[in-house]
Amino acid sequence: MPRNQQILLDNRPEGEAQASNFKLVETDTPALADGQVLVRHHFMSLDPYMRGRMNESKSYAQPQPLGQVMQGGTVGEIVESRNPRFAVGEKVVGFGGWQQYSVVDANLPGVLRKVDTSQVPLSHYLGAVGMPGVTAWYGLVKLIAPKAGETLVVSAASGAVGSAFGALGKARGCRVVGIAGGPDKCAYVRDELGFDDCIDYKVHSDVKSLSAALKTACPQGIDGYFENVGGMVLDAVLLRTNAFARIALCGMIAGYDGAPLPLANPSLLLINRIRLEGFIVSEHMEVWPEALAELGGLVASGKLRPRESIAQGLAAAPEAFLGLLKGRNFGKQLVQLA
Amino acid sequence: MPRNQQILLDNRPEGEAQASNFKLVETDTPALADGQVLVRHHFMSLDPYMRGRMNESKSYAQPQPLGQVMQGGTVGEIVESRNPRFAVGEKVVGFGGWQQYSVVDANLPGVLRKVDTSQVPLSHYLGAVGMPGVTAWYGLVKLIAPKAGETLVVSAASGAVGSAFGALGKARGCRVVGIAGGPDKCAYVRDELGFDDCIDYKVHSDVKSLSAALKTACPQGIDGYFENVGGMVLDAVLLRTNAFARIALCGMIAGYDGAPLPLANPSLLLINRIRLEGFIVSEHMEVWPEALAELGGLVASGKLRPRESIAQGLAAAPEAFLGLLKGRNFGKQLVQLA
Repeated sequence: MPRNQQILLDNRPEGEAQASNFKLVETDTPALADGQVLVRHHFMSLDPYMRGRMNESKSYAQPQPLGQVMQGGTVGEIVESRNPRFAVGEKVVGFGGWQQYSVVDANLPGVLRKVDTSQVPLSHYLGAVGMPGVTAWYGLVKLIAPKAGETLVVSAASGAVGSAFGALGKARGCRVVGIAGGPDKCAYVRDELGFDDCIDYKVHSDVKSLSAALKTACPQGIDGYFENVGGMVLDAVLLRTNAFARIALCGMIAGYDGAPLPLANPSLLLINRIRLEGFIVSEHMEVWPEALAELGGLVASGKLRPRESIAQGLAAAPEAFLGLLKGRNFGKQLVQLA
Repeated sequence: MPRNQQILLDNRPEGEAQASNFKLVETDTPALADGQVLVRHHFMSLDPYMRGRMNESKSYAQPQPLGQVMQGGTVGEIVESRNPRFAVGEKVVGFGGWQQYSVVDANLPGVLRKVDTSQVPLSHYLGAVGMPGVTAWYGLVKLIAPKAGETLVVSAASGAVGSAFGALGKARGCRVVGIAGGPDKCAYVRDELGFDDCIDYKVHSDVKSLSAALKTACPQGIDGYFENVGGMVLDAVLLRTNAFARIALCGMIAGYDGAPLPLANPSLLLINRIRLEGFIVSEHMEVWPEALAELGGLVASGKLRPRESIAQGLAAAPEAFLGLLKGRNFGKQLVQLA
């Protein structure tokens, strides 16, 4: 059996996450039992939600256990199989964690899904045609439920979720405005992703300034907002919401390190009769087939051109993850393992 | 025609509302045109929403115009009629404002509604069997949509909305916990309104202490919350919400004077996948018949025993209103005019 490099959560962050919270170890992969397969990971996914699980306190998921392999999504290929449903060489998406190989009891429903790489590159099954894409789909279709002509805004617009949200919103005839950090990301959001406009939050130092920029970019006000970051961005968006706006609350990365960030003026939720809903896409598995079908079509047709930041080798994962939390990635953050 | 005392909004508050914002004047009631009726008001309603309309800024409603009669709900009787659908002596509920009489074009749909006072006292049509009652009904039935056995919490529990919410929640087999100010109100909420428990927020000086009291009163956590006040109470409730809790956002009276009160930890909305919705009951007229039928039945059967604070005479209205904003009323605040 091959040797397997793994990254464990060694200790929990106090305040900002650090590379020293992680530990790289090497073990033997165990021999397969009946029904199991060995997956060699080609790519692993780095996602903001992982930061929340590094804390001790229970969030919506159990905390990531100390001393165990960091959990996360992976794509790879079957390199050994004792399960008749999976053949060596088949490509699969799963939840293999921060390691080069995983042993999977492939009879458990949903743990491995075979994917077709003829039209969609393997790595995109961790992004636009995977969990982040379905996250955008659920928030847009099930919570915001826009009408054609409405104005939608998404924060972290150049990321895996934001870029999918933009393509899905444009497909429904909406005006879609992104918020992203820096001129390069904003140019990509406008020019390659086809958003109607993109605001660089880094040139706005306060809520008033950002809110004025939103007013210019959204002359008809904001009907739907997909929230990935929280903090000042949410405060500014709320000031521009129309009556009966809908907010899909997916992430609040701005508050993941340290003290919670307050919401400055919650009475706007009442004044504008807003419906806001927090969600986790893994609790809505019933939408995945429909969502993945639409997302795969958008990628295959070139209407959604997801960008990826790819770190090389497992040892690069902690720094890439910390960079993601600071917005240093550009598009979906992956680590290539094979 | 009789002389008519009226209270106008004379100037807008800066910070706290003051008695000097209002002005009492006396005029003649005009002669009736065809289709009009003259209503003599027996009671007028004082409600927290009026404070929001005193500000210049547009809220969900247009601001109360300066120099005009303060708007508000009234019940009274027809004392003169040039409309064949309304006879002298009939009791009606309407939106006559802070004055002794109103001239109403009774052909406009919905401006006057005849009420039956054989089982429900006239004044209750401004409270439990009126706008406040329907407000509680809409938030409970349409937004919180509780299952039997769930735990519901309402702030300002001894008030017109809170007391109706309690009776409606108990009728659906829920555990209902109130939050109110002072031992007398809490005793009323528990003993006369039949809530399962009531917390006196005045004995809790911070979020942690109030949240601990909520934990004791809601051992199974909070599934539905009806928000009338905002501020620290909302922060404390959020800490005790269960996954998939629903919050009906009806009022944030704590922030009506002066600067907006922040929400300390909005990420709890995500962590607990909460659905929160702001609403105004006047935008949901379709539910009024069903809601009023249930509320009238609860009052007639004695299951909802609304309490009223009744100020005497129009001149007493401003002080009674300011007292309402400070929680000095006990139950529905009315002014008796005849």
